[in-house]
Amino acid sequence: MIDSEKKINPRTLPGFMELLPNEQIKFNKMKKTIENSYEKFGFLPLNTPIIEASEVLLAKAGGETEKQIYRFTKGDNDLSLRFDLTVPLAKFVAQNMNSLTFPFRRYQIGKVFRGERPQQGRFREFYQADIDIIGDGSLNVINDAEIPSIIYSTFKNLGFDNFVIKINNRKILSGFFENLNLSNKVTDILRIIDKLDKIGIDLVKEELRKYEIDEESINKIISFINIVGTNDDIINKLKLLDINNSKFEEGIKEIEDVVKYIRIFGVPENNFNIDLTIARGLDYYTGTVYETILNDYPQIGSVCSGGRYDDLAEYYTDRKLPGVGVSIGLTRFFYQLNKIGFFEDKESYISKVLVISMSEDIGYALNVTTKLRLNGINTEFDNTDKKLKNKLNYANKLNIPYVIFIGEDEILNNNVTIKNMESGEQKTLSLDEVIEILK
Amino acid sequence: MIDSEKKINPRTLPGFMELLPNEQIKFNKMKKTIENSYEKFGFLPLNTPIIEASEVLLAKAGGETEKQIYRFTKGDNDLSLRFDLTVPLAKFVAQNMNSLTFPFRRYQIGKVFRGERPQQGRFREFYQADIDIIGDGSLNVINDAEIPSIIYSTFKNLGFDNFVIKINNRKILSGFFENLNLSNKVTDILRIIDKLDKIGIDLVKEELRKYEIDEESINKIISFINIVGTNDDIINKLKLLDINNSKFEEGIKEIEDVVKYIRIFGVPENNFNIDLTIARGLDYYTGTVYETILNDYPQIGSVCSGGRYDDLAEYYTDRKLPGVGVSIGLTRFFYQLNKIGFFEDKESYISKVLVISMSEDIGYALNVTTKLRLNGINTEFDNTDKKLKNKLNYANKLNIPYVIFIGEDEILNNNVTIKNMESGEQKTLSLDEVIEILK
Repeated sequence: MIDSEKKINPRTLPGFMELLPNEQIKFNKMKKTIENSYEKFGFLPLNTPIIEASEVLLAKAGGETEKQIYRFTKGDNDLSLRFDLTVPLAKFVAQNMNSLTFPFRRYQIGKVFRGERPQQGRFREFYQADIDIIGDGSLNVINDAEIPSIIYSTFKNLGFDNFVIKINNRKILSGFFENLNLSNKVTDILRIIDKLDKIGIDLVKEELRKYEIDEESINKIISFINIVGTNDDIINKLKLLDINNSKFEEGIKEIEDVVKYIRIFGVPENNFNIDLTIARGLDYYTGTVYETILNDYPQIGSVCSGGRYDDLAEYYTDRKLPGVGVSIGLTRFFYQLNKIGFFEDKESYISKVLVISMSEDIGYALNVTTKLRLNGINTEFDNTDKKLKNKLNYANKLNIPYVIFIGEDEILNNNVTIKNMESGEQKTLSLDEVIEILK
Repeated sequence: MIDSEKKINPRTLPGFMELLPNEQIKFNKMKKTIENSYEKFGFLPLNTPIIEASEVLLAKAGGETEKQIYRFTKGDNDLSLRFDLTVPLAKFVAQNMNSLTFPFRRYQIGKVFRGERPQQGRFREFYQADIDIIGDGSLNVINDAEIPSIIYSTFKNLGFDNFVIKINNRKILSGFFENLNLSNKVTDILRIIDKLDKIGIDLVKEELRKYEIDEESINKIISFINIVGTNDDIINKLKLLDINNSKFEEGIKEIEDVVKYIRIFGVPENNFNIDLTIARGLDYYTGTVYETILNDYPQIGSVCSGGRYDDLAEYYTDRKLPGVGVSIGLTRFFYQLNKIGFFEDKESYISKVLVISMSEDIGYALNVTTKLRLNGINTEFDNTDKKLKNKLNYANKLNIPYVIFIGEDEILNNNVTIKNMESGEQKTLSLDEVIEILK
């Protein structure tokens, strides 16, 4: 027995999600749906370590990322916790080039760690759910079109209908700015455009002026990012701009192909849309980029983002490894959906049935329990000496949909009494009949 | 482009398991089987953080465990990576007493971290798969009997038949040694007995002598641990010892009940056996203890162990929380089974079929791909410009069991040609017929 004053306050660190079981069930269901959706498209699972050598993990990092990293020494080793799943993928592919078959399609769903200042909806330990397709030397643009098809299927499976996958192509953006002789300011301009939704057109203009961009160019930029309409409309309007720049033209050709194949993959027209304002902050995207918006919950922001990059593992190998991929920030997504009440009417139980013995002789009840389990039914046996009311309360609190009562009569007649906890309906049936109901 | 000499050697740290996809598929299948087995018995999922406050995680730790811990500071915080799933469970239960329903049945399958010296089959980052049943104040001994029933079901589902769950009761051991007036040496004696399998009877005797135990007592100890036979035999022999000690008698009563209920739960007699030499190293077990041996692979040692404890969370709360649980060291278990060749004949693929277009017009082939996916079939579309031989080679390397060819004829006749990659058999069929084959 430990003295009360010596006891430690049991607590979970701020910024770390720890769910109660009924919420964890919902989280796991979501994670499993994403996993199954990714596998439907033939992605192979990876599970890289959480701890890596700092030198390996930080080969590319810098700035904000590096500050947020959990880095420490153990013995002589300088170690870090992974802060995303892309760097470990790059390491893995560079390390196992000769054992892998290309295009290499992998998914990984796992925790990553960033020591951000904790604030509502921001986590220091959180799940990412990534897919990437990596080519050896080259990678067909059809892959860029398959990604939206995966996003579409995944979010449909998660129970959403009203969402739009926004696509753009970095070459269109780069080519356009090259044409305006603003190549040296592209990164800054893209960063500013990326804020359009947040700060509005006037502040975007103002910020652009700070970078000594003349009014004519600013107006051209504004009318460029104002190009909207159907996917075909936008492509036509882009062509009509008549910009003589090979990168720009390449970008249009690519997005035209991507749109064509997205359609053939069966994604409905109202679930994907070209959006010329999508740039994605990360500077390694070089072609198609994606964001996904739930129209009913726009405040969440993009729930699935990514893009095409030229070179996955340039910090580890000379082999050119172009890729395309997207990521879902699962922990934050779950947190926000939960806050909105998205899960309120969703089922959340593990056990389908609780078996309660009303007799001193529990042998028959235990037999029934084992038979239900052998028939694939998640089953609990109550072995407490609580009052019946409290036993039923236990089932209710755990959202267990059925209770089976076994008393002297049931033992005598070799049957069971089953109660539907929602409707209150109660029937005495043979075990086989009950198994059919529960299956 | 990064200079070659500046590239970082992509490597994974020693002691960290990182599997190639075909192995990862097998690992995941095992993990999922365990998960489903645990849920079949109504255990609720938990997913506690990997990082905890050191003060919380180390409330109880000491000695070897503390040395192995990954502990570091970030800002002002003294943090540690979890080294097992039991301490986080204790924290969680103490913290959420009022939100939980008891008996609280939880499972957690997750990575834990121990900075051991790496050696073959020992990992610094490894999965544990734990179940525990926690009572509030008391916990029925039927739970002690349900645990072997869960172990039995889990290992059957994993594909094993020839295994034995060894059970013992710490009260029998303690009572026996109390009776010999050796109470103050129980921990040492149990530790020595625990080594019986490794060092043999003579060295056990020798070690016991070091603790100044007289020859008569040593002989009694030896004949005690030599009690073998059927479960009923052993219980009868224990009773015949006629030891007048209340703890000893309590232990016999418990193990008798446990054996009775294990039988009712349907565990065959040859899959569980009382073994009086099982003590389990950890000093917090107070009642029933378990080890599980695969008879075909005894060199692996116990693959699932645990026991009953009086008080889960005494370092955090005054509430008495007795519990019983077991754990599978999944990473090590997988590693050893893999080395033995256990997985060699096991299936290992994600995609059921690879769709290959033999026509320039890929529209029909993409349509087929999407339809297969909508029918729940994991499907890949080949979009490379490799030679046919290399495309088939890709399918073979990924163990994809079927390939679908779509050429001009198939497009014209609205059908598909499917090839069974194992038998080589090839047929031209309607898409509906193919869906039936693949389902």
